[in-house]
Amino acid sequence: MPARKKPSRSRELRLVARPLGVPRATDWTVGELPVPEISDGEFLVELTHISIDPAMRGWMEDRPSYLPPVALGDVMRASAIGRVIESRNPRFAPGEMVAGLFGVREYAISNGRGVTRVGLEPSRPETWLGALGGSGMTAYFGLLRVGALKPQDTVVVSAAAGAVGGLVGQIARIHHCRVIGVAGGRAKCRHIVDELGFDAAIDYKSQDVDLRLGELCGERGADVYFDNVGGEILDAALMHLAMGARVVLCGAISQYNRAEVWTGPTNYWQLLVRRARIEGFLAFDFAREFPQAREKISHWIASGQLVAQEEVVRGTVADFPDALLKLFRGENLGKTVLEVTAAS
Amino acid sequence: MPARKKPSRSRELRLVARPLGVPRATDWTVGELPVPEISDGEFLVELTHISIDPAMRGWMEDRPSYLPPVALGDVMRASAIGRVIESRNPRFAPGEMVAGLFGVREYAISNGRGVTRVGLEPSRPETWLGALGGSGMTAYFGLLRVGALKPQDTVVVSAAAGAVGGLVGQIARIHHCRVIGVAGGRAKCRHIVDELGFDAAIDYKSQDVDLRLGELCGERGADVYFDNVGGEILDAALMHLAMGARVVLCGAISQYNRAEVWTGPTNYWQLLVRRARIEGFLAFDFAREFPQAREKISHWIASGQLVAQEEVVRGTVADFPDALLKLFRGENLGKTVLEVTAAS
Repeated sequence: MPARKKPSRSRELRLVARPLGVPRATDWTVGELPVPEISDGEFLVELTHISIDPAMRGWMEDRPSYLPPVALGDVMRASAIGRVIESRNPRFAPGEMVAGLFGVREYAISNGRGVTRVGLEPSRPETWLGALGGSGMTAYFGLLRVGALKPQDTVVVSAAAGAVGGLVGQIARIHHCRVIGVAGGRAKCRHIVDELGFDAAIDYKSQDVDLRLGELCGERGADVYFDNVGGEILDAALMHLAMGARVVLCGAISQYNRAEVWTGPTNYWQLLVRRARIEGFLAFDFAREFPQAREKISHWIASGQLVAQEEVVRGTVADFPDALLKLFRGENLGKTVLEVTAAS
Repeated sequence: MPARKKPSRSRELRLVARPLGVPRATDWTVGELPVPEISDGEFLVELTHISIDPAMRGWMEDRPSYLPPVALGDVMRASAIGRVIESRNPRFAPGEMVAGLFGVREYAISNGRGVTRVGLEPSRPETWLGALGGSGMTAYFGLLRVGALKPQDTVVVSAAAGAVGGLVGQIARIHHCRVIGVAGGRAKCRHIVDELGFDAAIDYKSQDVDLRLGELCGERGADVYFDNVGGEILDAALMHLAMGARVVLCGAISQYNRAEVWTGPTNYWQLLVRRARIEGFLAFDFAREFPQAREKISHWIASGQLVAQEEVVRGTVADFPDALLKLFRGENLGKTVLEVTAAS
């Protein structure tokens, strides 16, 4: 991908309304401003790939969470990858590829804080937002640390064909665990078994999840349930926990777009029956260990043990809302990335 | 307490109906049968004190839990203390006081499994069902192990004037923690602060628990929330967790008597925001360490650091339902024990 000629203006996507329920394209607007001048210690990044994540829905809410809400009028928060095209920072040279929380924009200025240098071989840039990026770090540390995975564990993961879920299942398989994925639709279920090597899949759209979990987990139950969805599937999983099970709280995509109050896990009492726990986490807390995790995951990809599944959407920052809404309709397989094309 | 003359017949309380909602006295019936003869290895216990516990409500339900349901027609399950009056077991001699899951009856036969010898000095028999019994073990291991208590932690406990809650707060205080108790009514709130040494009390009947927790826990939040109640108070506590907080799931008395489906914790998402966990446990899993825990608690009682608060109700097995229902009306302070008087 050759560097584009630096234009004088940069487009960016600004949040202008807080959605009640499912976001609409009109919750954002495209703004344009001059490409800013960099100061000492800063560098300018031309974004090439923007990460599309379910967690973005939470960032649109005006309520306390692990990050402050995106303010109305501000650029939509997003992880992204780009190329340094100007630098007055000795640590980052023009031509280098970098990843960071740059936002949905064409050009970003950074002082290097929170920015990672991206090694593009042997991975594709989109893999640096997926298996080697936030999704990969979330799957890796969530499963191995928070989930305290042990060999021979039975692992259940929801949104199993999604960016994080697909990696959780594969990392569990690599650790000699039995893996059951819950996903929506036959195509996704086939994908996780045939392409990603899951032991079994449950199609929540056509099957009784509680019944199938009972059949697949048996009397012993699941040692780890990695929850990306909340709601009814979390409640079903709680009924099939092994003694001492770990429920890893990673996401709750079934709840993000509800206009009403969230539904808590009705069956949480099973945590006492099974001496189990639900634990929340953020991959970011393990940031100092990301390099080692990336090395492992890169090795698994290179050796063919792990499939880095991505869907790349090509477009401009104006195409971000469509790409995000596609996630909430469950139309993605693996990681969704917006590849930023030159403005038309 | 002199041994009663062994009568020929024993009365027992049998579960005859499964309550929907709050139990009624008619859910049990008093039966009578000959005092049974003991076989080799067995001994006969004359019950003197029966433990009254909120958990009993769960044992009346016909659904899978950590113990099988009490079958209809069976003697109501209960921890109790009594005196060995006949023995063909070399480990237990007539005259000894023992504790076990003997049930709500006047005379119990045992082979010694799960039975503890009770040392009555310096403690009262009722203390062996409270601070040195199941309530004490639950508070001790729940707080110190599951709650992973650290000095200087801020600890919040609900049902703080109850058998377990009052001990949790005192054990936390002894470990140099700041303790906030949530209880119902001014008398209970005064009790936990003035008698048990809590730092603060929140009266959930007259105060806004969420608001008060915010004032009392501050920005930092609670490091441990010991939950005996579930429902709205659990949800409020989830909004005031410190980073890495431990929510100890011990009970859910607000839910036990609901005829409808339980309400799960709507705010469970805060576990992710705060990298916190909810963990369930049963004191029984720590049974091998009970002797050391009893030794510590006995020492705290003897040295005046810990108050073993009990309410002794005198009556026959027929008075069990009233004593249990009193718990659900929140009329008790500390441990409730039914002292079994001779049948009239």
